[in-house]
Amino acid sequence: MPRITSLITRLLNGSITPEAFRAELAEMISIPRQADIGEAVVDLERQRRCGFPEVIYGEGKRAETIAAIIGRQREHGIVPLATRVSPEKAEAVRKQFPDLHYNPRARLLRGEVSVLEGTRGKIAVVSAGTSDLPVAEEAFETALWTGAETVLITDVGVAGPHRLQARLSEIQSADAVVVVAGMEGALPSVVGGYVAVPVIAVPTSVGYGTAFGGVTALLGMLNSCASNVTVVNIDAGFKAGYVAGLIARKSTAR
Amino acid sequence: MPRITSLITRLLNGSITPEAFRAELAEMISIPRQADIGEAVVDLERQRRCGFPEVIYGEGKRAETIAAIIGRQREHGIVPLATRVSPEKAEAVRKQFPDLHYNPRARLLRGEVSVLEGTRGKIAVVSAGTSDLPVAEEAFETALWTGAETVLITDVGVAGPHRLQARLSEIQSADAVVVVAGMEGALPSVVGGYVAVPVIAVPTSVGYGTAFGGVTALLGMLNSCASNVTVVNIDAGFKAGYVAGLIARKSTAR
Amino acid sequence: MPRITSLITRLLNGSITPEAFRAELAEMISIPRQADIGEAVVDLERQRRCGFPEVIYGEGKRAETIAAIIGRQREHGIVPLATRVSPEKAEAVRKQFPDLHYNPRARLLRGEVSVLEGTRGKIAVVSAGTSDLPVAEEAFETALWTGAETVLITDVGVAGPHRLQARLSEIQSADAVVVVAGMEGALPSVVGGYVAVPVIAVPTSVGYGTAFGGVTALLGMLNSCASNVTVVNIDAGFKAGYVAGLIARKSTAR
Amino acid sequence: MPRITSLITRLLNGSITPEAFRAELAEMISIPRQADIGEAVVDLERQRRCGFPEVIYGEGKRAETIAAIIGRQREHGIVPLATRVSPEKAEAVRKQFPDLHYNPRARLLRGEVSVLEGTRGKIAVVSAGTSDLPVAEEAFETALWTGAETVLITDVGVAGPHRLQARLSEIQSADAVVVVAGMEGALPSVVGGYVAVPVIAVPTSVGYGTAFGGVTALLGMLNSCASNVTVVNIDAGFKAGYVAGLIARKSTAR
Amino acid sequence: MPRITSLITRLLNGSITPEAFRAELAEMISIPRQADIGEAVVDLERQRRCGFPEVIYGEGKRAETIAAIIGRQREHGIVPLATRVSPEKAEAVRKQFPDLHYNPRARLLRGEVSVLEGTRGKIAVVSAGTSDLPVAEEAFETALWTGAETVLITDVGVAGPHRLQARLSEIQSADAVVVVAGMEGALPSVVGGYVAVPVIAVPTSVGYGTAFGGVTALLGMLNSCASNVTVVNIDAGFKAGYVAGLIARKSTAR
Amino acid sequence: MPRITSLITRLLNGSITPEAFRAELAEMISIPRQADIGEAVVDLERQRRCGFPEVIYGEGKRAETIAAIIGRQREHGIVPLATRVSPEKAEAVRKQFPDLHYNPRARLLRGEVSVLEGTRGKIAVVSAGTSDLPVAEEAFETALWTGAETVLITDVGVAGPHRLQARLSEIQSADAVVVVAGMEGALPSVVGGYVAVPVIAVPTSVGYGTAFGGVTALLGMLNSCASNVTVVNIDAGFKAGYVAGLIARKSTAR
Amino acid sequence: MPRITSLITRLLNGSITPEAFRAELAEMISIPRQADIGEAVVDLERQRRCGFPEVIYGEGKRAETIAAIIGRQREHGIVPLATRVSPEKAEAVRKQFPDLHYNPRARLLRGEVSVLEGTRGKIAVVSAGTSDLPVAEEAFETALWTGAETVLITDVGVAGPHRLQARLSEIQSADAVVVVAGMEGALPSVVGGYVAVPVIAVPTSVGYGTAFGGVTALLGMLNSCASNVTVVNIDAGFKAGYVAGLIARKSTAR
Amino acid sequence: MPRITSLITRLLNGSITPEAFRAELAEMISIPRQADIGEAVVDLERQRRCGFPEVIYGEGKRAETIAAIIGRQREHGIVPLATRVSPEKAEAVRKQFPDLHYNPRARLLRGEVSVLEGTRGKIAVVSAGTSDLPVAEEAFETALWTGAETVLITDVGVAGPHRLQARLSEIQSADAVVVVAGMEGALPSVVGGYVAVPVIAVPTSVGYGTAFGGVTALLGMLNSCASNVTVVNIDAGFKAGYVAGLIARKSTAR
Repeated sequence: MPRITSLITRLLNGSITPEAFRAELAEMISIPRQADIGEAVVDLERQRRCGFPEVIYGEGKRAETIAAIIGRQREHGIVPLATRVSPEKAEAVRKQFPDLHYNPRARLLRGEVSVLEGTRGKIAVVSAGTSDLPVAEEAFETALWTGAETVLITDVGVAGPHRLQARLSEIQSADAVVVVAGMEGALPSVVGGYVAVPVIAVPTSVGYGTAFGGVTALLGMLNSCASNVTVVNIDAGFKAGYVAGLIARKSTAR
Repeated sequence: MPRITSLITRLLNGSITPEAFRAELAEMISIPRQADIGEAVVDLERQRRCGFPEVIYGEGKRAETIAAIIGRQREHGIVPLATRVSPEKAEAVRKQFPDLHYNPRARLLRGEVSVLEGTRGKIAVVSAGTSDLPVAEEAFETALWTGAETVLITDVGVAGPHRLQARLSEIQSADAVVVVAGMEGALPSVVGGYVAVPVIAVPTSVGYGTAFGGVTALLGMLNSCASNVTVVNIDAGFKAGYVAGLIARKSTAR
Repeated sequence: MPRITSLITRLLNGSITPEAFRAELAEMISIPRQADIGEAVVDLERQRRCGFPEVIYGEGKRAETIAAIIGRQREHGIVPLATRVSPEKAEAVRKQFPDLHYNPRARLLRGEVSVLEGTRGKIAVVSAGTSDLPVAEEAFETALWTGAETVLITDVGVAGPHRLQARLSEIQSADAVVVVAGMEGALPSVVGGYVAVPVIAVPTSVGYGTAFGGVTALLGMLNSCASNVTVVNIDAGFKAGYVAGLIARKSTAR
Repeated sequence: MPRITSLITRLLNGSITPEAFRAELAEMISIPRQADIGEAVVDLERQRRCGFPEVIYGEGKRAETIAAIIGRQREHGIVPLATRVSPEKAEAVRKQFPDLHYNPRARLLRGEVSVLEGTRGKIAVVSAGTSDLPVAEEAFETALWTGAETVLITDVGVAGPHRLQARLSEIQSADAVVVVAGMEGALPSVVGGYVAVPVIAVPTSVGYGTAFGGVTALLGMLNSCASNVTVVNIDAGFKAGYVAGLIARKSTAR
Repeated sequence: MPRITSLITRLLNGSITPEAFRAELAEMISIPRQADIGEAVVDLERQRRCGFPEVIYGEGKRAETIAAIIGRQREHGIVPLATRVSPEKAEAVRKQFPDLHYNPRARLLRGEVSVLEGTRGKIAVVSAGTSDLPVAEEAFETALWTGAETVLITDVGVAGPHRLQARLSEIQSADAVVVVAGMEGALPSVVGGYVAVPVIAVPTSVGYGTAFGGVTALLGMLNSCASNVTVVNIDAGFKAGYVAGLIARKSTAR
Repeated sequence: MPRITSLITRLLNGSITPEAFRAELAEMISIPRQADIGEAVVDLERQRRCGFPEVIYGEGKRAETIAAIIGRQREHGIVPLATRVSPEKAEAVRKQFPDLHYNPRARLLRGEVSVLEGTRGKIAVVSAGTSDLPVAEEAFETALWTGAETVLITDVGVAGPHRLQARLSEIQSADAVVVVAGMEGALPSVVGGYVAVPVIAVPTSVGYGTAFGGVTALLGMLNSCASNVTVVNIDAGFKAGYVAGLIARKSTAR
Repeated sequence: MPRITSLITRLLNGSITPEAFRAELAEMISIPRQADIGEAVVDLERQRRCGFPEVIYGEGKRAETIAAIIGRQREHGIVPLATRVSPEKAEAVRKQFPDLHYNPRARLLRGEVSVLEGTRGKIAVVSAGTSDLPVAEEAFETALWTGAETVLITDVGVAGPHRLQARLSEIQSADAVVVVAGMEGALPSVVGGYVAVPVIAVPTSVGYGTAFGGVTALLGMLNSCASNVTVVNIDAGFKAGYVAGLIARKSTAR
Repeated sequence: MPRITSLITRLLNGSITPEAFRAELAEMISIPRQADIGEAVVDLERQRRCGFPEVIYGEGKRAETIAAIIGRQREHGIVPLATRVSPEKAEAVRKQFPDLHYNPRARLLRGEVSVLEGTRGKIAVVSAGTSDLPVAEEAFETALWTGAETVLITDVGVAGPHRLQARLSEIQSADAVVVVAGMEGALPSVVGGYVAVPVIAVPTSVGYGTAFGGVTALLGMLNSCASNVTVVNIDAGFKAGYVAGLIARKSTAR
């Protein structure tokens, strides 16, 4: 705590006034601003600390709670993002905030990111089969919410080599690539061999028998022979989109 | 057992002589010819029943036992194949049978298949990295032993798309393809998308961490999105070569 | 790419006309013919590339989509096969294509393979208990669709040795054998000891307790002491029938 | 504790003398006779309580300790059995007790069961491959020690149907059958279908890849379709021989 | 096949008449008597071969099928046993066979074993908690069906040492003991220390969290420090009762 | 942070002198006293914060490092404890600190706890077999180091019910009981039923086959039917002794 | 059994009267007082033997049974605790005992602990997210029932470091800390670093994908780098509260 | 392939000369430049395609092969990186290339990255215990090789909260953070809560018992409650450093 030591020293030797001391101290020891809305505590300074605002995990929260959090976030200019929101809850929340965008396949509710915030890099979300779409779209919507220019490329499975090659230039222009795949999870390795940016692999619980609810895809991705592949939890489309957003944002200042 | 019933009936109603009855019965109820060599019993009719001669599993057998079996097989014109044979044992056996071929990487000992037996189709054995070579060569040597024209194609991993494409025509001309891979085991899916014949996938115990000694590759292969991929046990190069030989042989009569 | 190099060279040195150049180039770089029907892209050249036409995976597809794909396939003379189709969907599709054959136990919908296509070898599909029937029939229907002469042999479990022996000659006359079994999965080993062709083992999710939804059967099959046994995913009757079809077809040219 | 209550009552109401009371009480509350030999406590009444004497688990015990226990057992007429005894330890123990029988493959040391103890039923120990022999012989030696007439039948794997049938009558005459198998562990199911007595299945750690050190064989045995199969731990030849002895002994009184 | 050889020889050298030959041969090669009732094939000679009649596995069979099998069995004097029968199916079957006994907790339907068949030894079925009752009663009913005198002892968990001791004499008088337990599965070890007969341990799927549907209990039982404990599959009350019946029957001839 | 706020306020409004402010602040923001000895940083205030001094994990540390840490601890009156120390390292350390006590079976090195520190409650460490001794002694030595009166009770396995009962009164007088067991891990449940204090169960990696290096014992303990059993990692004798010491210490103030 | 021996001796040598003998004997051999209420046997002396009264496990018990047990307990002055009680059952029981407290989230029913029983130490129950609340409240209610002063601290997950620090003094004043966490289960390690008392970690089945129903959290807790963390089964809030009560009670005599 | 079409068109309509056509075509269809050095094929254009040059996986390669690859790379100005190189091999290679840097703990050999290439962002590599150092240093050395300014921060485990906070400002200034941890793997979650950049978590195989060779740490990291954590394979320090380099490089253009 060298800063507080130096502050005290300056106060004690008179180099700052008590008022200046009080202000600087207040700033230093300020507890993160939070809003207690009864059922939940809203963290209003997450964006400054972690890069993006707090995200609402909708699972197990009542629609009213979600709406209350969103209301409080909007008062502070925060663009809300809520994941794992059922259509019924989404409808209830949108009665109060009709401008929110809801993607029923991704089960995700979010505000529109204003153009004035500027571009924050490019993200490509790639998936193999139609069964992977719910997870891919969760990643896609989250990536959009981070402000990145995002493209969703589907139906490019390993078994159809022509299709992936047809979309390669789009994928290669991204700052970060999210690859969503179930079954054997081989797509990230193949994509990883074509790009010079990080690939975030998302295993999905698609498949039967020894797909083991996504474990097989997860293991395949962890053992990818491509050096640029990292992995997130099964079906964790949100986390992949979020990290891709963190990476892509690095490019915005260029 | 209609045949024996009819045979008895014919004997009883006098339509065949007792001698003819005796001969046909002997052929019918003949126990497979076996040679007891003390430590092991050599099955001398396996080829007729199962398509190929009995194979010697060298693990845990002494060199003398292996040599004794080979000696007995040769008396019956059988071309021997012994798997999992250490270099020391191989050297000892080859003192007695110097014409046998030994592949130290595959740890496999076999006789040369004579050209007069004719071609028995084509097999391609494909592998990704150099660490997969021992298993790939076990498959390769076994495939040669089945009499098939066999090609070994290595270093065509998923991460290097150009290399696989350069060898595609060789692979596509085979009657059966063996694909050997460790780590995430994605290669069989990729190869499977390019060929119209069965692909026999062999997971290898290559890799570290969550490669789990080949389990990850095995799971990836079982969940392959390519319809023509079947799987054998981890490191079971012999079995893959053997089955490929059974398939390729079907083409020899063309 | 030696062919394109040679083509260019011939154009540049005048040995072919620009028109011939254009035609040959068009043929060379042609993207596989596909039909985009909105919700799906139909691959119309799969048969040429992979031996059999594209198969429709019914899980998660709406009846209209399945019907649309079938419609487009028929325009190109393709005999359709759709797996994992519920009775409700099948009924809806068959309103449009009443000649399609639906097997409710296998949950499989397919066109009749015309006799004029000729025989494509023989396949035996063998299963132990009645609980394995859905998977066995999926393999059986798929095998029929590949054009092979196919026989379905059930109720020949390991515990009843007499029954298997009674059906042995039928099994031994096949070019490929599919063996479907749950619980301990021992049947493929036993069958494998009697035949000289590849055995494709399909573990089923039948059983309770440590059957682990088919994993025990799968492990038993992977560790089969019979050399001619390869394995597919749990409940993957389709894949087994498909590969058996590829193998059996080799015999058609005889 | 009705017996002690009744005893006390009888004493109090004078229906037995104090001497009779004392004797009966002593018998009732007697602590099992034990011999403390320093490093171990020898249970000298196990045979009366559990059917057979205490068995010495040699793993981790010094040769002197094993010899001391055997010495004390012999003083009480107990025929010793020690499992998991290395050749070095066995040699040391047999310096003191040269009449003991040592089986180096089974790593088992035991006294000879005297004929005067009479026959205690019949046991068949059956195994598939030569790699299963150490476990099969541990079961075999233990079964002999229980006093049963025991036969060891090896080399009757599932893949060779003729061999098992040749030995069936021997197996069918036993009161209990121990079946030892590795890899897929299918042999107990096949044997179980032929006999009307309990089959005790012992999985062995033989195999590679997905044999998983015997887990695959264990799972196969637990899921056996034969109703008369129970299972013991991997490589637990001793336990199988012991239980077979308990069962066979039931037949001795016939 | 020495018997058939000798038979043929005797026919050929005239030592038996053709009629005698025909009769003996017919007896020898007779296929087990079976009754084909359309949906199932009823094995009518199982009792002679395996000790007890064929048991009907009710899971997945329609009530009519179960009734048809029972009808055919009764024609041959077989006492039926059907496991995994739902109350609805049981009601339907009992409309036709009202004298059958149905235990709804065990989901088991069986005929009464007539006293005239004599006693077949004693069995004790022991369980810990009330949640284990369905499995314990399946074992109990099966044991009764084997003709053994059977006692069901419940509520004697490891945590209540007094209760087990109060029932020890009943347990110790049995010829075979079935112990049913979930959670940590420690009861068989404790019971095993008190008896001189085989203990058949049945893990149940009772418990939560790391009980893993019975796997924890199964592992505990396989690793029991008591030498007389063998194990069956999770929830396999039927198999335990069946094997206990095989063991107990050995005592009936005394 | 109300305390710092109030401190600042008091300074600013003059209710404390700058000197008093400085002293109180220094005390408040003091970083824990640490000693940097090059290869490691010694935490000298752990005892105040966590109840006991920092423990040295010997695995992978050189003898010199261990000795250096001990030297620094002794300067501050800390009684050292080092776990997982090989005999060679122990000998080297004891050259410098010959009064340290080394237990080679536990592989643990510690100082003597002086009597003047007073009694800190009673601990019983209980184990089943001799193979569990290394772990049991690690717990025992650690418990002694915490200052508790500790007794080590061995050879009281579940299979020998008499032995445990003979030692019950010793166990019941403890403030905390550590139970060490391998194989099926049933002992903690049995002990737990007899005592009114916490039982800390330690699974050991003893056993073979499905003992799975202690996982079976761990699972058994987690599913114990006794309400007073908590569990630590496999072979974690140290942690069990440490927690038992924390519990027992509560009794010292009585 | 020295005491009974001495008692008998005294009777026999006349040093006590038969009446005194009878009384002392009755006390000695008294079977624990139990109340048989038909469907269950109520243990009325558990509190003396185990520290707390018998707890009713509500799963699978009918409301009438639960009420009957509670009725019998109340006759003996026992404060009841019933876990895993559904709201419907709770309502039925409370019709008879309206003063009982029911926590629907914890699904737990209990009597109020009277103040006159005195304080029994302090317990802190700490949890991360709202999804962990059912388990945390089960621990909380159980801890209250043990008579300890208990505080429930929620929403202090690892990701929000400020929140935990704000509640540290409350946690540090407890005699035992229960930490409830799902997902990666890191909270116990973090809390463990701040307190000098035992931490009982409870993994919850909260999470998705590789959370594996609580196994990941369990493994994390077992491998905690904090020395004072022990673990209970997944979702075992009751057991954690019970053990915390045993520990905290040690402090009541201070 | 619009570009080739347009190129052909331009040639055919005369808008480019045959020479220009030939040059552009050569550039378009150029196969990646590779150098075949006998035992391996060196990819000389990987840097352009994938961002960094090809990395040499030293496991299983002979020292001469490694040296040959490095020699060829240097001819093309590539800075070499070889992982999993034993000290003996490193010594042999450095005889030829004495300027290479070898880190024996990381088992990694690399060239010095010249300053002229400019700064490529900042990376922090954070680890908990000294046992994690080999993996942490592999990540550290790789990160340096990518040209990033890299700091290695060790000994900041979860149990010592003060130490992490003392290093927070260094960590927070990085563009990407690699966190290496074994045992329960909680450190990435804690670090993730403090930074606004991606955290790449590396589980290590450190620990015993249920650490399961790193699986527990891996699972903990996959289930991290922090949104910015992605994961690589167990002990995959190289991959984490590589991806961190890709991310950090994005900042270099600022």
